[in-house]
Amino acid sequence: MKISLNKKILDKNEECAMQNSEFFADNDILCLNVISSPGSGKTTILSQTIRDLTGEIKIAVIEGDIRTDIDAKKIRAAGASAVQIETKGSCHLSAQQVTGALMAIPAAGMDVIFIENVGNLVCPSDFVLGEDLRVVVLSVPEGDDKPIKYPGTFAKADVILINKIDLIDYIDFSLERVIADIRVVNDKAEILQLSATTGEGMENWYNWLRSKITQ
Amino acid sequence: MKISLNKKILDKNEECAMQNSEFFADNDILCLNVISSPGSGKTTILSQTIRDLTGEIKIAVIEGDIRTDIDAKKIRAAGASAVQIETKGSCHLSAQQVTGALMAIPAAGMDVIFIENVGNLVCPSDFVLGEDLRVVVLSVPEGDDKPIKYPGTFAKADVILINKIDLIDYIDFSLERVIADIRVVNDKAEILQLSATTGEGMENWYNWLRSKITQ
Repeated sequence: MKISLNKKILDKNEECAMQNSEFFADNDILCLNVISSPGSGKTTILSQTIRDLTGEIKIAVIEGDIRTDIDAKKIRAAGASAVQIETKGSCHLSAQQVTGALMAIPAAGMDVIFIENVGNLVCPSDFVLGEDLRVVVLSVPEGDDKPIKYPGTFAKADVILINKIDLIDYIDFSLERVIADIRVVNDKAEILQLSATTGEGMENWYNWLRSKITQ
Repeated sequence: MKISLNKKILDKNEECAMQNSEFFADNDILCLNVISSPGSGKTTILSQTIRDLTGEIKIAVIEGDIRTDIDAKKIRAAGASAVQIETKGSCHLSAQQVTGALMAIPAAGMDVIFIENVGNLVCPSDFVLGEDLRVVVLSVPEGDDKPIKYPGTFAKADVILINKIDLIDYIDFSLERVIADIRVVNDKAEILQLSATTGEGMENWYNWLRSKITQ
């Protein structure tokens, strides 16, 4: 006898991701999974976003790091709720860890939940967390060859933030090349240039965020 | 009957690493495994090192990347042999891949072989490749909180290169904090500040390299 299962067999991470996804849908929460190399400025972008959008958009953050709760403290200092997940060596967040964090926030009532993944341009991209969309951050000092060298992560992005644009005069970095290389693997993602420290370009990012909340 | 095995059971990666290590010892080659985030400047440091030490130290490079042979081309342009390993998605090099690359160089006759690992501050640190020593690169724009957030990689370093020191005036980065945080997990690694683009501090790195070759 042959039994046909007309559904994909999900692994544990995918099952939890689906549960998280349903929670976001049921509660009208936009969930964004933020992925980048270490030090590209994810936390600074999120902190500035929270400060600038206070009173307009209710934001909470799930922070993923190998060790320390430095980033969660920064987010709280900016005025939002944050839960820190310490992966203790694991190179990416799992959907299960996110489920636990969602209970701890608590998440209901928020407009946007950011999941700041472990700083890693490779591994987090392979693990769905239940997010609606993915934000990939590339900072100018990392160099303009990153999209072609780490295509998997850039291919799955919905928006790509080119951060630390204020440093572009000090570094050999071609925006044209970066955009062309991104387009080889991803012809849909919005590409925004900004600097979370100077504020340049942040309004475009906020407008992108606003457009996704109202969808 | 109880059989006692008086040796550690090695996994496949460790077995290959041991084989690589024996090859380096038999051939008087110093092998350095270079680990960092994407874009910290590993390839630029190695290219400049090759240029500056031409005629003094015979250097070859094994390049690890998810995709592309951009880095191997840069190394060859600097004047050294290079073999590119494309991991096609894997987040770290394996000892088996290094064994294959060593045959392709060929490696015998070299003084130093650098293995430039996949840009990733987490995963490569868990996989020995047969190297003698580990070089960890941290670039100033990544931020001064990286040693405390990614302690595993910094704990296993023999030398830590703080690169892009020429950008320190443009970035909020405390050298004192970085050094203090490194010392929490690693009290032995040499810590050197340099800029591969301006040349500042490179001579200290070359002297470190010379001291290890003659040991």
